[in-house]
Amino acid sequence: MVYLDYSATTPVNDEVLETFNKVTKEYFGNSNSLHKLGSDADRLINESTKIICNFLKIKTSELIYTSGATESNNLAVKGVIEAYPSRAKRIITTKLEHSSIKKQMETLKKKGYEIEYLNLLEDGTVDLNHLKSLLQKDAILVTISMVDSELGIRQPIEEIGKILKNYPKVIFHTDITQALGKVNFDLTNVDLASFSGHKIYAIKGIGGLVKKENINLFPQIEGGKSTTIFRSGTPQTSLIASLAKAFKLINYDLDKSLNEMIITKLKEYDVHINSTSKSIPHIINFSIPSIKSETFVHALDEEDIYISSKTACSVNEDMSESVYAVTKDELLSKRSLRVSLSYLTTKEEVNRFLTVFDKCYQELNILK
Amino acid sequence: MVYLDYSATTPVNDEVLETFNKVTKEYFGNSNSLHKLGSDADRLINESTKIICNFLKIKTSELIYTSGATESNNLAVKGVIEAYPSRAKRIITTKLEHSSIKKQMETLKKKGYEIEYLNLLEDGTVDLNHLKSLLQKDAILVTISMVDSELGIRQPIEEIGKILKNYPKVIFHTDITQALGKVNFDLTNVDLASFSGHKIYAIKGIGGLVKKENINLFPQIEGGKSTTIFRSGTPQTSLIASLAKAFKLINYDLDKSLNEMIITKLKEYDVHINSTSKSIPHIINFSIPSIKSETFVHALDEEDIYISSKTACSVNEDMSESVYAVTKDELLSKRSLRVSLSYLTTKEEVNRFLTVFDKCYQELNILK
Repeated sequence: MVYLDYSATTPVNDEVLETFNKVTKEYFGNSNSLHKLGSDADRLINESTKIICNFLKIKTSELIYTSGATESNNLAVKGVIEAYPSRAKRIITTKLEHSSIKKQMETLKKKGYEIEYLNLLEDGTVDLNHLKSLLQKDAILVTISMVDSELGIRQPIEEIGKILKNYPKVIFHTDITQALGKVNFDLTNVDLASFSGHKIYAIKGIGGLVKKENINLFPQIEGGKSTTIFRSGTPQTSLIASLAKAFKLINYDLDKSLNEMIITKLKEYDVHINSTSKSIPHIINFSIPSIKSETFVHALDEEDIYISSKTACSVNEDMSESVYAVTKDELLSKRSLRVSLSYLTTKEEVNRFLTVFDKCYQELNILK
Repeated sequence: MVYLDYSATTPVNDEVLETFNKVTKEYFGNSNSLHKLGSDADRLINESTKIICNFLKIKTSELIYTSGATESNNLAVKGVIEAYPSRAKRIITTKLEHSSIKKQMETLKKKGYEIEYLNLLEDGTVDLNHLKSLLQKDAILVTISMVDSELGIRQPIEEIGKILKNYPKVIFHTDITQALGKVNFDLTNVDLASFSGHKIYAIKGIGGLVKKENINLFPQIEGGKSTTIFRSGTPQTSLIASLAKAFKLINYDLDKSLNEMIITKLKEYDVHINSTSKSIPHIINFSIPSIKSETFVHALDEEDIYISSKTACSVNEDMSESVYAVTKDELLSKRSLRVSLSYLTTKEEVNRFLTVFDKCYQELNILK
């Protein structure tokens, strides 16, 4: 098997699963319980929180556990809107956002919100001059993913944060799901940041939202106090502890030459590389104009090679809005494919992918 | 160790954990992915859904996976309110509900909703005549837990459902978290039902909401399609499969004589039994007027015996609103304790509890 879909989800690290098992067996108490089994679980959660917050360089009171990035993105947007009801009904975002942001923008538009989409430069990063001009009018929120899931473009979040420092009433949210564990970043001037465990070799069903202490949020899942007052529900001790373990094991050692190998080879075909100079080396997005992406994914499938057509969680079934936002080309947007790499990816796997790519490309073009 | 706090959370069944491990290792694909690893995971989720829905006697399209009962309760209430915006701003509930319902009622009251609390009969069940009289005025929702977490009172949900059949515009939600795996029930006339995995020996972080097909809900966590369109987020394959395993292993074989043993013995002390004739045998709620509940919980703790003071997730820190609703006695409500039993509980464990209970009771009363 050659798995090249790490941006959709990652296999769980053995040590993470070991932690999960140990904690499930030995710390099963409800951390909200008053007795020793409860306080044992509570202590373990606090230790886990320290590890994660230390990594993110935030205070331990600034982390809210959620079920994943989709919930975090919903809590960030809805939580801010409900917490600051008198602020402007205007949000600034991009066409590169994850479905969980996109869908909310559609809903908010119906509710009378003005949704402003930032222009993108040729390399897919947001036009900071456009941002500054949009900020001349009040906005409640700016939400931009640090690295988008389809093209992997690293946005200048730190620079945007510095600009937004001059607008204290504009809250800044970023989705760091695809950035975490892949690139270095600085959350100093970010107010809210979403992430997920299952993209960093942890288990599906756990994630977090960074919420700086000066920011208020109205909880979307109400109830008793959990690990914070911003999200209720029985704390998921073993998911949390295993998430902390995954943070400890974060590994930046992707062999960047693998990215170059793939792009160099793909350029020999009638293939358009959609990734830009600002895409992270882990993600290679490209289109084969002559072949439907589903057809190509299934052809590779037969050879036990796994890549992605669009993302695993897109809203629009027909074409990739993200690829369209960068390429402005409908055919490329309908026929995009994504290869995503990991520090686990080997040269042998990439060679096997390239061999099978050649075979499938030739065959499918003959059969056309 | 004698664990008598099964209503707060349960230890994970070994076979459930085994399923979790197997699925985590062998089905790690994102079930939304187009390739084989995705469709393998998707198929496993569908098989799991069949098992759970078969148990609950609902259609497979009627189950929404969530992160647990707290999220389910929030999705039920908020989802209905947003889906039916023109219906009456009036909700009928009880004083016995879980914090995740209580807290929402407080929020909705501030938003102008009328919250009606049903009178309780002496045995703690709701007064059906009061319900009928309240129904003379329009309401959008009736929400009543099937078995409350503190006193374990089994409410006549099936009878209430029959009454509500005559009011097709009133949606009926019940929280079956404490009923599932303990009592038989019939969801025929229920519209929405919440449950959690970690009360049935599954893992914390997974639960569900039953939503009958004629009922609409506005999703609270928006994004791409997940297992349903009502709750987005990457499907948590291994949590779902292990939840299905827990459903398969549901065991009703509680030795009811253990409940009688405890109650008979407790009556020898100056102890008030708050549980009623309608409480399920798994839950024994009682108050020791002469001793603070926290003090008593900690005294038992020292002897490696775990019971609960109030629930693990209460809103009001000071006293139990549920115990007050049934006893109308402030002291009893401040000093309530809960012993909760499982099919795993043995006579030896109960005897050990009763011996230590006697010791702690005598000592703490001398020291007063």
